[in-house]
Amino acid sequence: MISEPAGTATGPDTAEKSRRPGGRTARNTAAVLDATLSELGEHGYAGLSVDRVAARSGVHKATVYRRWGGVDGLLAAALEYSADDDWRPPETGSLRGDLAELAREVAEGFTGGGEGAAIASACIAASFQSAAAADALHAFLADRLARCAAVVGAAESRGEVPPGTDGADVVRAAIAPVYYRLFIGREPVSAEDAARYAHAAADSARSGAFAGTDRG
Amino acid sequence: MISEPAGTATGPDTAEKSRRPGGRTARNTAAVLDATLSELGEHGYAGLSVDRVAARSGVHKATVYRRWGGVDGLLAAALEYSADDDWRPPETGSLRGDLAELAREVAEGFTGGGEGAAIASACIAASFQSAAAADALHAFLADRLARCAAVVGAAESRGEVPPGTDGADVVRAAIAPVYYRLFIGREPVSAEDAARYAHAAADSARSGAFAGTDRG
Repeated sequence: MISEPAGTATGPDTAEKSRRPGGRTARNTAAVLDATLSELGEHGYAGLSVDRVAARSGVHKATVYRRWGGVDGLLAAALEYSADDDWRPPETGSLRGDLAELAREVAEGFTGGGEGAAIASACIAASFQSAAAADALHAFLADRLARCAAVVGAAESRGEVPPGTDGADVVRAAIAPVYYRLFIGREPVSAEDAARYAHAAADSARSGAFAGTDRG
Repeated sequence: MISEPAGTATGPDTAEKSRRPGGRTARNTAAVLDATLSELGEHGYAGLSVDRVAARSGVHKATVYRRWGGVDGLLAAALEYSADDDWRPPETGSLRGDLAELAREVAEGFTGGGEGAAIASACIAASFQSAAAADALHAFLADRLARCAAVVGAAESRGEVPPGTDGADVVRAAIAPVYYRLFIGREPVSAEDAARYAHAAADSARSGAFAGTDRG
């Protein structure tokens, strides 16, 4: 994990954050929130407990309770903290290329194995079991979507898509089928599948499907 | 519910099935599986119990245990039984129209209120808590997707899309953003949103995005 970037399109990563500078409180915060994500990835929402997070982070249980209140507070804080990274969407030079890379990154983020994939998938599952987790995931993904919309803004600057194209919606169209296959239909998703959806979304955007009067 | 059709694009409905003819065993099966879906819709997977299903259906608990084994067996059987209906996709005369109606039906199926919407949403949530529920939902949605692909087959017959267009994949592209908004990003979805995604998918299919060499 150490050699990977600080975040992905799909979810938090615990690697970089723990190397941030800061005083004892900042180090404790990082240790607790990293431990929260690791525990979530390993045991799921149902297995998350303040006791285990405290033990894993080396921070006293009473401190964890006082500061985060419980499991939902920990999870919300961990997701908020994860969103505070420098992740940026790809810049391949074309909307097709950018969206394909993004869709590939989403598929890879959930299926690529390792702690990151386990945490990302566990976050989705947790959102069905806890309203606090659902709210936190919504905020996390809304932020990622807003960052991703930059690829459509760049395409608009290059004249690839009509003015007024809804960037977030183009990105939703590109990545949603990947999420559908993984978490709704429970179907495998290949890199070719991801590219096909991304290319279709890019071509739709070029023809103006996400600009103008069709916009709801 | 009695006036509604037997099923929807998104999920099972308990209304028609209970009016099927049949002997005592068939009536008991219908009562138990209808009760399973109603309990799921009201209390979610975590609140599902053989005791409650038995009490609600009026079938003896021992019979329910013997025949279905437990909660997961009940849920799998209820979804399999729900798939055995005569639901068919819309036939509006154009691919744009058919996909828009389908996407609208998906959005409405989850957000329209009533028992049906509660059951459909609870099925998605249950798939994150039980492997048996995930398998059953996968089978249910794969069947729905195969039926929906007929709208693309009809479009191919009319010359609207190129030969060899992957019907299921066009449908995935049309409906996935609706699922993404509801269950991943946790964003509201309007009828206009649903139509926009459906129109984009239809136009992509017309330009050949889901046929030929781009197909993975």
